[in-house]
Amino acid sequence: MTTLNRQLRLKARPEQLVGPEHFDLVQSPVPELAEGQALVRVLYLSMDPTNRVWMSDVPQYMPPVAIGQTMRGLGLGRVVASRSAHFAEGDLVQGLVGWQDYAVIDDKRAKDWVKLPPHPPVALPTLLGACGFSGLTAYYGLTDIAPVQAGETLVVSAAAGSVGSIAGQIGKLRGARVVGIAGGADKCRHLVEDLGFDVAVDYKAEDFKKKLAEATPDGVHVNFENVGGAVMRAVMSRMVNDGRVALCGLIANYAASGRPSDDYSVIIVKRLTVRGFLVFDYRDAEKGVRELTQWVLQGRIKAGETVTEGLENAPKVLNRLFDGSTVGKLVLKVGDE
Amino acid sequence: MTTLNRQLRLKARPEQLVGPEHFDLVQSPVPELAEGQALVRVLYLSMDPTNRVWMSDVPQYMPPVAIGQTMRGLGLGRVVASRSAHFAEGDLVQGLVGWQDYAVIDDKRAKDWVKLPPHPPVALPTLLGACGFSGLTAYYGLTDIAPVQAGETLVVSAAAGSVGSIAGQIGKLRGARVVGIAGGADKCRHLVEDLGFDVAVDYKAEDFKKKLAEATPDGVHVNFENVGGAVMRAVMSRMVNDGRVALCGLIANYAASGRPSDDYSVIIVKRLTVRGFLVFDYRDAEKGVRELTQWVLQGRIKAGETVTEGLENAPKVLNRLFDGSTVGKLVLKVGDE
Repeated sequence: MTTLNRQLRLKARPEQLVGPEHFDLVQSPVPELAEGQALVRVLYLSMDPTNRVWMSDVPQYMPPVAIGQTMRGLGLGRVVASRSAHFAEGDLVQGLVGWQDYAVIDDKRAKDWVKLPPHPPVALPTLLGACGFSGLTAYYGLTDIAPVQAGETLVVSAAAGSVGSIAGQIGKLRGARVVGIAGGADKCRHLVEDLGFDVAVDYKAEDFKKKLAEATPDGVHVNFENVGGAVMRAVMSRMVNDGRVALCGLIANYAASGRPSDDYSVIIVKRLTVRGFLVFDYRDAEKGVRELTQWVLQGRIKAGETVTEGLENAPKVLNRLFDGSTVGKLVLKVGDE
Repeated sequence: MTTLNRQLRLKARPEQLVGPEHFDLVQSPVPELAEGQALVRVLYLSMDPTNRVWMSDVPQYMPPVAIGQTMRGLGLGRVVASRSAHFAEGDLVQGLVGWQDYAVIDDKRAKDWVKLPPHPPVALPTLLGACGFSGLTAYYGLTDIAPVQAGETLVVSAAAGSVGSIAGQIGKLRGARVVGIAGGADKCRHLVEDLGFDVAVDYKAEDFKKKLAEATPDGVHVNFENVGGAVMRAVMSRMVNDGRVALCGLIANYAASGRPSDDYSVIIVKRLTVRGFLVFDYRDAEKGVRELTQWVLQGRIKAGETVTEGLENAPKVLNRLFDGSTVGKLVLKVGDE
């Protein structure tokens, strides 16, 4: 029996939000494996803001996805057939599987894939969230890029999201006063009551700036920035002199049309150090994964995922990153474990 | 005989360029000195982009000048009368003398003033330029904020200006390949032929971006940024990964109306470190002044000033910072030495 593979191929570049109209759902037989190849059944796709950036023809850290190409995406899956020297049937692997049911992986690019333990100590979606790249982004942002010290005030934007929720909890583990910014009363309650943030501020509230000022009476020493735009400007205006910014993301810009309008002048006025970073640069992330996994197993960090289903829903589901309707890591289930 | 003092007092906040209409020229007798005070005859005013910023009611590192207040400005002068314990008649002092003929200085704020050597080894305008805050800005920017290494490519914008011209020359002393950006063929020739820059690129030329790319075949390791806006975006697009930006000024924004439109995304994409700084934070600048003065006396750094005359011309002269009609440090002569 021929195994069929479904692929979401980029048909048109979205201007703002993403829809099915930007993709072709193409079905074709899984290719014959060549020597040195393995076939991976994709189980979970990580839904990330960077997916949206990859759809746009703007300067970025990887080439944009070409029209007609299967959408690039991080995920994990299980090897179901193998002619490979590196990957055996049953292996669990993580990498750029793409928005499809099956991925063919190649020994020549073995280093692009992370082999996961066969029986992971945490749920598979958590391997894409708190114990995966989302958690690692928070981890390296606050230990290497803008290390936060005990007693300092850390502000985290998009704090209910996959990276922000972990960043805030790491801030608490390091002894900082942690202020989270999120949209709506429910998320703010979640940050304080479930995740242990000191204060949460609702950026949708009319008195957001006033509330942010009240929440940061000593100013902001470290800004873990995920959002950009008006939220970022509000936080930057609260920075102490010589403050530090871990510039992780600018999600407010990603699905917006037109050029983002930011302002560098505050960096001079407050003598800030702003460092941009990409988690993929931390090749040897074992220490980070180990520490995060321990924290999750010890209950010191709460992992949270929003899992939805169906490859065909990927374009619509991705928008949940931009409309604020998700808490924790957003994961799409593509196949049964 | 009563000594009269002329003061330029801010009357209205300029939107874009500065004109006499934004100031009242007020004449009044010099006040009687109290115990602990000295009277300074202002000799030279430093014309700086920051003057323009101080006129605007925007967030900045000092309060904006209030309407009705004498315009704040850096300069140097000689003590002509003294009831002070710190300042004797004949002393040469540098500090925020203001846009006026005479300044009263006070022992209680003695630390705000720098006493200059009675017989400086360089011309007085140079004490405001290469051997003063302009030179120090270049010096600390390239030694402390974004130290440039031998063999690296340094780009300096506003390179024919007071800070940029020194920054480029310091870059050469440190063994970097130095690319200057300036407006017009004359300035570009000056940078290469007189100041020893490796290449100069004219930002007014139609093929500016192409020329900048050709001038930076290995990318840009350090950007000494003075300009902002389109020039900055062009340089940022040439940065190498993990490049460093000394964010010194954003002169393109200062006399523009409306909110500046910058873009932080390149900081992430290229994993840059961007550090804002203010030379005034380097309180103990003796080493810098000594080194700069030696370099100037040895001819290893060429100091250049454009000196014009007349306190009453200050508003118009300041605009020369924004219309590109000046080379080197812009100094206004207010009194005879």
